[in-house]
Amino acid sequence: MSDIEAMIARRNRLLGPAYRLFYDAPLHLVKGEGVWLIDADGGRYLDTYNNVPHIGHSHPAVVAAVQSQIADLNIHTRYLHDTILDYAEKLLATFEPALDTAHFCCSGTEANELALRLARDATGNQGVIVTECAYHGHSQAIYEISTRDVGARGLPDYAIAVPAPDLLRGPHRGADALAHYLDHIAKAAETLNQRGYGVAAMIVDTIQSSGGTVVPPMGYYRQAAEIIRQAGGLFIADEVQAGFGRAGTDFWVYQGHDVVPDFVTLGKPMGNGMPLAGCIAQRAHVEGFARSHKYFNTFAGIPVSCAAGLAVLNVLEQENLQANALDVGNHLKAGVAKLAEEHDAIGDIRGSGFFIGLDLVTDRKTMNPATALTKSLIEAMKERHVLSGAIGPDMNILKIRPPMVFTRDHADLLLETLGASLRAL
Amino acid sequence: MSDIEAMIARRNRLLGPAYRLFYDAPLHLVKGEGVWLIDADGGRYLDTYNNVPHIGHSHPAVVAAVQSQIADLNIHTRYLHDTILDYAEKLLATFEPALDTAHFCCSGTEANELALRLARDATGNQGVIVTECAYHGHSQAIYEISTRDVGARGLPDYAIAVPAPDLLRGPHRGADALAHYLDHIAKAAETLNQRGYGVAAMIVDTIQSSGGTVVPPMGYYRQAAEIIRQAGGLFIADEVQAGFGRAGTDFWVYQGHDVVPDFVTLGKPMGNGMPLAGCIAQRAHVEGFARSHKYFNTFAGIPVSCAAGLAVLNVLEQENLQANALDVGNHLKAGVAKLAEEHDAIGDIRGSGFFIGLDLVTDRKTMNPATALTKSLIEAMKERHVLSGAIGPDMNILKIRPPMVFTRDHADLLLETLGASLRAL
Repeated sequence: MSDIEAMIARRNRLLGPAYRLFYDAPLHLVKGEGVWLIDADGGRYLDTYNNVPHIGHSHPAVVAAVQSQIADLNIHTRYLHDTILDYAEKLLATFEPALDTAHFCCSGTEANELALRLARDATGNQGVIVTECAYHGHSQAIYEISTRDVGARGLPDYAIAVPAPDLLRGPHRGADALAHYLDHIAKAAETLNQRGYGVAAMIVDTIQSSGGTVVPPMGYYRQAAEIIRQAGGLFIADEVQAGFGRAGTDFWVYQGHDVVPDFVTLGKPMGNGMPLAGCIAQRAHVEGFARSHKYFNTFAGIPVSCAAGLAVLNVLEQENLQANALDVGNHLKAGVAKLAEEHDAIGDIRGSGFFIGLDLVTDRKTMNPATALTKSLIEAMKERHVLSGAIGPDMNILKIRPPMVFTRDHADLLLETLGASLRAL
Repeated sequence: MSDIEAMIARRNRLLGPAYRLFYDAPLHLVKGEGVWLIDADGGRYLDTYNNVPHIGHSHPAVVAAVQSQIADLNIHTRYLHDTILDYAEKLLATFEPALDTAHFCCSGTEANELALRLARDATGNQGVIVTECAYHGHSQAIYEISTRDVGARGLPDYAIAVPAPDLLRGPHRGADALAHYLDHIAKAAETLNQRGYGVAAMIVDTIQSSGGTVVPPMGYYRQAAEIIRQAGGLFIADEVQAGFGRAGTDFWVYQGHDVVPDFVTLGKPMGNGMPLAGCIAQRAHVEGFARSHKYFNTFAGIPVSCAAGLAVLNVLEQENLQANALDVGNHLKAGVAKLAEEHDAIGDIRGSGFFIGLDLVTDRKTMNPATALTKSLIEAMKERHVLSGAIGPDMNILKIRPPMVFTRDHADLLLETLGASLRAL
């Protein structure tokens, strides 16, 4: 038995069988450095898809912040501490003035739990509108509305799914598509009212990740929020995957869509890997809740996590990483467009900055999802020491979501490997 | 405006209004060292109630483990990593062989979410039995069964509360109390069957913290588990507060009650303040789930948290801290008993090791809860630089749950301060 096989056997013995590993031959990692992951044999892999180590694996600023804070104090939020306030202030400054109130959580799941709880309390309603093929978390109240995973059991009666505004593969694609997609929302609100739940919230991934990197047409979010508010509900922008400058154009993706959400939920990249998430709210929506409830979450907003979060914001600013994401993202898209001249399997390239989805198809005429090819491609790239993954309803979208310190040189290596791997398949 | 007032104002402006602070004059903390918390003015406070910094604030072993791991790699569980396996192995060795499968989470809330989800999947049932005045977490599926907080809204139809087996203040106190408390469980199971939910699980805090440090009579858990299993459900021991040797007698409190739970949930002390929690399961209960579901939780089981968890287990062992908890806990209880000769307000002292509740009463004849006195006492002790807090349905139980490195000298300081504060009130 190889070391890797022995490790897998040990893992299968100790951990729950519902855990999964990436790749046919899983990687045994020991070190991370910027955009590189290093395995036990010293092999170096270019990381083109991990969006949690936002400013790069083991970024010295995060390492220093965590090392310093863990040595001093790591206590809960029922005492006063400077770091949580410094962090909240810097974080809130990235939002519109109306989004003025921060809550911290340990995971994106908890952030969405809190946003829904606050929305229900503020509106007095229970109903939720979600997009199809969305994933918002793994707690019961969240996975039961995560349309990617509900399967045959279907949504609970209080939740209605609307089609993701996918102009490539969605049910509406023409000039009037936007109106049709909005109409689904209005009808869903009406149905929730008829069922007696009312509308508490609509929740959307601002770039719909599980849906296959769906970027909605301009006007969708703004008008969706209007419809929801007219129906008495609130609009929750889930920026757990898309936020913190990743898309390059805006710090928060919703900001490019001329809408101010009622709640914004944050997670993955927030602490560069430390368990840090957040629910940012408009103050008016949380005052009623505070009169009858306390909010306490043992590990949320602890100094060590906030120190990591603060380092992330500082580095994004100092190293101008949002602009880097836009620049290198455009370079990547141009490179993929060039590869597409040679490869009919490249059906579409979408997203922006470092939130790019490469839509792989059997051929561009039918645009049928190339699920098997995508899996083979990922394994072939991994053999060439470039790491990526698949997403989307048909698992045919190659994720390009590298750490924000990914350079043009890294992009060229990715493009070269992508081309070589496609040619070899 | 004082510095503290300015800080509170800043906090009120930035954070959600549902956040709360401890004490009339909240503490601005900057440093933690073992059992000591240090404020911005250099004031040193003896910490007698924080159960998260399990082996002491800023324990060098945890500091070193976190500092080393954060510099190397901090990645999710879909790659192979040694630390999660080393930790899982050492952790599982503290349980009976039947509890052989580990899942990691970011919070006790998430651990209870997962346990309930797994129990429902394994049994095909939905119903839940909880004890009165219990707190299990803040996500929707958990807070709606957290009887401490449900208030007028009541429990959902699928959940039934049974009285906590409180021999001091509960509805049954005599020789036949145990039989009565068990009868409540049997009746609840019957009702859940009649309502069509069946019984998925009973969940209990093994020392009922929010209920006021209720230690059930011997036989309660064992027979409760039997009743639940006969009804087709599973038994979840919530050791989030009580576990990791705190009670002194056993590493897990259920182990003193001759029962092997189906799931055990872990949290607070697990990573000495790092966001680490867990759900330990009997393998047979999770195999069906794994056939149809994946389990992934971005920040759960990351190397940095597991390194902290491993350091905690090592130090507990090396420094013999469970035995210390029992020894110093007994010393504390003897000291409180001596104080009780002088103070009629000390109605009861219960729990064991470093999970002690001091039940304060208006007088020992009526045993009426002394809620106001408890609050004053906590403030008076804080003025003397000894930190404690209140718990229980009437907030009249003084928590004595210090870090596990609390010595007899610390205990004497606590007892001296407790005595002086009681005399001064």
